[in-house]
Amino acid sequence: MTFRDDGAATLDWVASYLERVREYPVLAQVAPGDIRAALPASPPEEAEPFSAVLEDLDAVLMPGVTHWQSPRYFAYFATTASEPGILAELLIAGLNQIGILWRASPVLQELEEVTLDWLRQLVGLPEPLHGQIEEAASMSTLTALAAARAAHPDRRVVVCSEHAHSSVDKAARLLELELRKIPADEAYRLRPELLDLSGACAVVATAGTTSSTSVDPIAAIADACEPDGVWLHVDAAYAGSAAVCPELQPLFTGWEQADSIVVNPHKWLFVPQGCSVFWTQRPDDVRNAFSLVPEYLRVSEEVASLSEYSQVLGRGFRALKLWAVLRCYGRKGLQELVREHIRLAALFEEWVGAEPGWELCAPRPFSLVCFRLEGDDERNDELLRRVNASGEIFISHTKLDGRTVLRLAVGNARTTEDDVGLAWDVLRREAASL
Amino acid sequence: MTFRDDGAATLDWVASYLERVREYPVLAQVAPGDIRAALPASPPEEAEPFSAVLEDLDAVLMPGVTHWQSPRYFAYFATTASEPGILAELLIAGLNQIGILWRASPVLQELEEVTLDWLRQLVGLPEPLHGQIEEAASMSTLTALAAARAAHPDRRVVVCSEHAHSSVDKAARLLELELRKIPADEAYRLRPELLDLSGACAVVATAGTTSSTSVDPIAAIADACEPDGVWLHVDAAYAGSAAVCPELQPLFTGWEQADSIVVNPHKWLFVPQGCSVFWTQRPDDVRNAFSLVPEYLRVSEEVASLSEYSQVLGRGFRALKLWAVLRCYGRKGLQELVREHIRLAALFEEWVGAEPGWELCAPRPFSLVCFRLEGDDERNDELLRRVNASGEIFISHTKLDGRTVLRLAVGNARTTEDDVGLAWDVLRREAASL
Repeated sequence: MTFRDDGAATLDWVASYLERVREYPVLAQVAPGDIRAALPASPPEEAEPFSAVLEDLDAVLMPGVTHWQSPRYFAYFATTASEPGILAELLIAGLNQIGILWRASPVLQELEEVTLDWLRQLVGLPEPLHGQIEEAASMSTLTALAAARAAHPDRRVVVCSEHAHSSVDKAARLLELELRKIPADEAYRLRPELLDLSGACAVVATAGTTSSTSVDPIAAIADACEPDGVWLHVDAAYAGSAAVCPELQPLFTGWEQADSIVVNPHKWLFVPQGCSVFWTQRPDDVRNAFSLVPEYLRVSEEVASLSEYSQVLGRGFRALKLWAVLRCYGRKGLQELVREHIRLAALFEEWVGAEPGWELCAPRPFSLVCFRLEGDDERNDELLRRVNASGEIFISHTKLDGRTVLRLAVGNARTTEDDVGLAWDVLRREAASL
Repeated sequence: MTFRDDGAATLDWVASYLERVREYPVLAQVAPGDIRAALPASPPEEAEPFSAVLEDLDAVLMPGVTHWQSPRYFAYFATTASEPGILAELLIAGLNQIGILWRASPVLQELEEVTLDWLRQLVGLPEPLHGQIEEAASMSTLTALAAARAAHPDRRVVVCSEHAHSSVDKAARLLELELRKIPADEAYRLRPELLDLSGACAVVATAGTTSSTSVDPIAAIADACEPDGVWLHVDAAYAGSAAVCPELQPLFTGWEQADSIVVNPHKWLFVPQGCSVFWTQRPDDVRNAFSLVPEYLRVSEEVASLSEYSQVLGRGFRALKLWAVLRCYGRKGLQELVREHIRLAALFEEWVGAEPGWELCAPRPFSLVCFRLEGDDERNDELLRRVNASGEIFISHTKLDGRTVLRLAVGNARTTEDDVGLAWDVLRREAASL
């Protein structure tokens, strides 16, 4: 078999998968160890054809897949690897660019600069803004806090709301910074009147918290940071993509004052996994914190490599997938999808709000609905278990005010009103059977 | 156009690219800013077809590509995104698995465990060994040193040779550890008799340094680390893959005593960019340094997620590409390629050694040859410039004993004896024209 034949079979596999993705149970219905036990304990001695890989993908691996691509995936934050994003990954792999310095892949570095400036324009942020793509928001936030620490060597405190993402905790731990968590208000937003910035090198404000997508009062926090030059990092990993819609940009007011921002196009902008955008107004501080050019990378070009702004030396050509998605959707296409997701979430919210025995648990600024069955946590835990065990939909949970709350996140590009309707049917059916 | 049609065009593009990759200048022949200037300053308003992406890829982007896939790429470390690896990336993107916890993708976690155990067997390491895939060696080494710091809270020194990779410097800086560099011997290996472990939480020993692929005396270093439980991290990012050949395993003697090891299959094991293997004998220490499970990820399964061992929460399905490569080459196929690369490097070394006016500059344990023209650095700098400007081959340089040294690295799966012969012809031709 040639690469062309194997490729055609692989492409057919992916196309068929996307066509029939609704047929799979959304949450993998396997027990820990099942997939491991189905695989050989040792590697093959002899080469096998690629067709063997595709066969075992179906026979052995697929039962262990949780279908993030399913339009009935409503857990955590629902995402999409869109068709242009998927094909861009094929190109990225074919070209195998490794951006250890500018000359090692001029196109990687310059397309990254251009696409991140495009995205800056789409979400309505002012220039200039240095942009770079990291693997995940965990890395973008780590980059921000490392730069903040380097910029303020005498300050060892990071401040955030009690609803900030765990990646802030993880970054603070790695950087040996003390984390000061500020209580949130009744809508799960950081209370700026309680901000204590003593000894703070950085504040992380969240636009779209993981539990409820609440938005911290960014402008007030920015004003508080300003006098002492405290580094303001805005974590808009999930919700930032929504700012492609001008009517939603007021929710982000103040982020234009941030020292750094993270937005993950792999969350709600239809780019496959591995595309977290980090923007900063203080690129020199970031470069000071990370730059280290060994002799073998010293060349005559008068251009700083993106790897000088990052912990990782060998960058992937992630800009190509963001570029393909921005091209193939256009501003209007992105706006339409985000608006549709918000419309569907609003509809679901309406259904829950109108149904006796159910309650809504948080305001809904974007496309996540927080809700629960009236009654105790055990009832909601059991409902969650049954709903996900059905395989028909997949939702997740959180705790708000100490109570178990269910989360339905709309964000897959293929999700229709029927899919959301099915989710509500399944929830009511399983609730009735409790 | 449908996904199937766009996909067929994309696949054809990649297949044609690989067929004609020798036709491109290996090093991109553009100046800084050229690619940026050729791209629109703003994103499109309306959706464009994927064909427009492919057209601009050729028209605008390709001049900015440095051809890591070329068999005439001999710079840094030569790599390959092999055909099975490329097609696996298409599958990875189609499935879009995001491993934030076990249930979010059981297959991602369990295939990662199995393939890393396969690779452990292939390189001859004893079990048990906890394995996980990171984006890059920078992250694997950071993971090791963070765990070492957490295991020894009263020790703030990391020890390595003066030839250790810059990622060790970067990790030490991020972790605020003092880096103590030990002088190397005449063959660029750490001198164990000079090891000073006072206050050391970790030692990084390198098997295959970036400048010359020298191998530190790992067994002697391991013995020195043992009494005080100093964490030994072995950086075998490049050379570790060579241990698939049993006759080369003695070069790595002692790494079986290491607390952690990094080997990058995306360097010399034909896996596309973004596959760095981190192994550890002390998974509990790694988990202690990184684990942090927020409420929304707390579930009933009694299984630790790989994300608990890592700074990054959202893992990609990288195991699938390693699995595809191990399947489609088999142990024998991997061994054949590694042996062929070493044979070609030995041949080149022979040619240089036999040619008056040229000198070899370091022992050659693997597939990298360090050499230079007799005479001053300027002459070698100019030779390097001319050779790379020709576009026929791409090589890089380093400094050894304060002198400019040229590096020819064989590692692309498509490189033939003719390609290496061409490299030698181009070098002699350009040297004659100086």
